[in-house]
Amino acid sequence: MILHDYFRSSAAFRVRIALNLKGLPAERRFVHLRKGEQRSPEYLALNPQGLVPMLTVGGESITQSLAIIEYLDETHPEPPLLPASPADRAFVRSIALAIACDIHPVDNLRVLLHLRDAFGATQEARDEWFRHWIREGFGAIESQLAARASGRYCLGDSPTLADICLVPQAFNALRLEKDLSAWPRIAAVHAACLEHPAFAAAVPAAQPDAE
Amino acid sequence: MILHDYFRSSAAFRVRIALNLKGLPAERRFVHLRKGEQRSPEYLALNPQGLVPMLTVGGESITQSLAIIEYLDETHPEPPLLPASPADRAFVRSIALAIACDIHPVDNLRVLLHLRDAFGATQEARDEWFRHWIREGFGAIESQLAARASGRYCLGDSPTLADICLVPQAFNALRLEKDLSAWPRIAAVHAACLEHPAFAAAVPAAQPDAE
Repeated sequence: MILHDYFRSSAAFRVRIALNLKGLPAERRFVHLRKGEQRSPEYLALNPQGLVPMLTVGGESITQSLAIIEYLDETHPEPPLLPASPADRAFVRSIALAIACDIHPVDNLRVLLHLRDAFGATQEARDEWFRHWIREGFGAIESQLAARASGRYCLGDSPTLADICLVPQAFNALRLEKDLSAWPRIAAVHAACLEHPAFAAAVPAAQPDAE
Repeated sequence: MILHDYFRSSAAFRVRIALNLKGLPAERRFVHLRKGEQRSPEYLALNPQGLVPMLTVGGESITQSLAIIEYLDETHPEPPLLPASPADRAFVRSIALAIACDIHPVDNLRVLLHLRDAFGATQEARDEWFRHWIREGFGAIESQLAARASGRYCLGDSPTLADICLVPQAFNALRLEKDLSAWPRIAAVHAACLEHPAFAAAVPAAQPDAE
């Protein structure tokens, strides 16, 4: 398995956590997003989306972090990254997707740069944009988590896809928020996750390409 | 089952297609997004995310269209909305997520309105923003679909989660693009889907709340 990765990409961070939870080794290839390596002809030939992460396995290249993680969970079922019952699976996926669809895409680097280029948005205006979507998204997730709070993690005492998405988004939030105290349940889950070695080993600063 | 719906929501449109493909009836409750009904205290008490769709079933309320569709596929397996092999499932999910994470969230109503409010973006500038992400996203998806083209739909001769996401996004694109001819494989799949009664019955204009 080859993981195309970048230390600061929170979508790649999700896949690193999943690989660690499964105990799966992957060869790493680093794509420097800030230098624009994802737009090189060589990389676009591999992945027309021009994004990381991408996982190459058995001759297939899989794009999109959640598709990669569901694939890993289907092909390496232990430990499971989704609970057993359909209703619980739906809850976990809904938290993961609230982050992956409603917070991260509007706050990621390519959108912030396009705000600058299309509207001349200043750094301050881009920071306020970023905070707006974090607060809107985390406020809703906090309510949903609190309503079903049980155990150390988003749902129960084993990490799931929801935690895998929550921690990288919390890392992003902490670039502009001084702490997570506005969202106590998110803060508690985040702290619990960081005590888990699979999460700790996946953080941006621990990666070989970290700057 | 109760579906909280809005005719113009492309995320709700996805769930309508999935329910039709499964032959599942759902009571419909309409939440008028342009009137802001999703921000009413009553609706936020049900769904803190303040978004449609939401599916209420067996006492649980499930948010996020892809979580709802995966739940429907797990609880009502026929006809399947994902192929059998993990690699094909990953391909289908990656197309669905490229739309659900990388095009739709940056181009939806709440983001366009926030561009207006935060940056004073004119209608023309908002239209150009919208087109930028459609072209970027559809260009990549066109390459990925063309590389694996086989059969009437995104993958093979049965509709999957990829088609369920593609058609509503194509409807959105056609509000500003005169046709889909820049993306011939997407255009062919879109046309094939609209001949399928499950898709045809789910289009915005066919809904009871259509204006």
